[in-house]
Amino acid sequence: MSKVYTGASMSLDGYIAGPGESGFDHLFEWYFNGDVEVPTASDMTFKLSRASADYLTGYISQTGSLVVGRRLFDLVKGWGGRHPLDRTVVVLTHSVPEGWAPADENFVFVTEGIEAAVAKAAEIAGDQVVGVNGGTIARQCLDAGLLDEVWVDLVPVLLGSGTPFFEQLGTAPVLLDGPVSIVPGDRVTHLRYEVRK
Amino acid sequence: MSKVYTGASMSLDGYIAGPGESGFDHLFEWYFNGDVEVPTASDMTFKLSRASADYLTGYISQTGSLVVGRRLFDLVKGWGGRHPLDRTVVVLTHSVPEGWAPADENFVFVTEGIEAAVAKAAEIAGDQVVGVNGGTIARQCLDAGLLDEVWVDLVPVLLGSGTPFFEQLGTAPVLLDGPVSIVPGDRVTHLRYEVRK
Repeated sequence: MSKVYTGASMSLDGYIAGPGESGFDHLFEWYFNGDVEVPTASDMTFKLSRASADYLTGYISQTGSLVVGRRLFDLVKGWGGRHPLDRTVVVLTHSVPEGWAPADENFVFVTEGIEAAVAKAAEIAGDQVVGVNGGTIARQCLDAGLLDEVWVDLVPVLLGSGTPFFEQLGTAPVLLDGPVSIVPGDRVTHLRYEVRK
Repeated sequence: MSKVYTGASMSLDGYIAGPGESGFDHLFEWYFNGDVEVPTASDMTFKLSRASADYLTGYISQTGSLVVGRRLFDLVKGWGGRHPLDRTVVVLTHSVPEGWAPADENFVFVTEGIEAAVAKAAEIAGDQVVGVNGGTIARQCLDAGLLDEVWVDLVPVLLGSGTPFFEQLGTAPVLLDGPVSIVPGDRVTHLRYEVRK
């Protein structure tokens, strides 16, 4: 089966969002503080340092599909119809949202839980990697033994509270190996860990 | 005045201790998984990788004094009379513990708050650095604008909950700069950040 990776921008104190959905100006600064333009499938263009651009395009190029939770899907209103990374997104949900078909080219809605969502995403990804979102979805994958790698974009800010990368772990401690790579960027350090199985 | 640094082993999810004071076997593994012996003033000898040994002895050699809280002082029973790093320790406390003089060569008890404790430690440190403990003391220094650098020994483990490096920050977000150095060790990555002022 496809490998399953998760990645997110995280503050040094472990948060992927600050209190009240704050802190994104700091967490995502590295996406927009460089000279290298990386276009997306939306009308947004990343402007990255060379190091971060190479890192990010490397991550994207090996990613065949994505799994996200319904909360994020609703929050971003389905990214206007297509995810910025230009990949099919499997949405884990309790019910298919109104106005959407259960499956089309851009979004597939899975209601049978995280294992079914990842299996569907793996089928779509083929020999590429399944990317899952930080937060609840990554934690569910970790608890289910489905997660292979954690890509942390470590940002030099302390947010104090907010949404942890992995919230309410079912099993802890979880041992990782690595970092297997360290890429220093501008206001970010890209760290890649393997989940020990 | 002396620069003020804090350093601690921290899990990737931001904890310097797991739930119920657990996780130290993982957090401190790098102190004992190498071939390079670094003796301490106690009967403990660190056995470090070459990279971690160079990093740690560099940190120790520039440290002139330490500030810790009363809780840690009690927990380790005053390190049997002398801190393992062989430095005078300023203990921030509400009252001088029974059986101790307010000041001797090894421990100085300060009851007038964090600024007085750091000032006393700076006086002792001279042109060297004041090292303060992670947790409450580091957070108090940060809130008071006294902290210059944060040295994080980032350990590839998720503890899920426990004691954060900086707990209940009074002011957030706190911007850091760096890491100004990255030293990969064995089951640890040493990251050094400056506090932006």
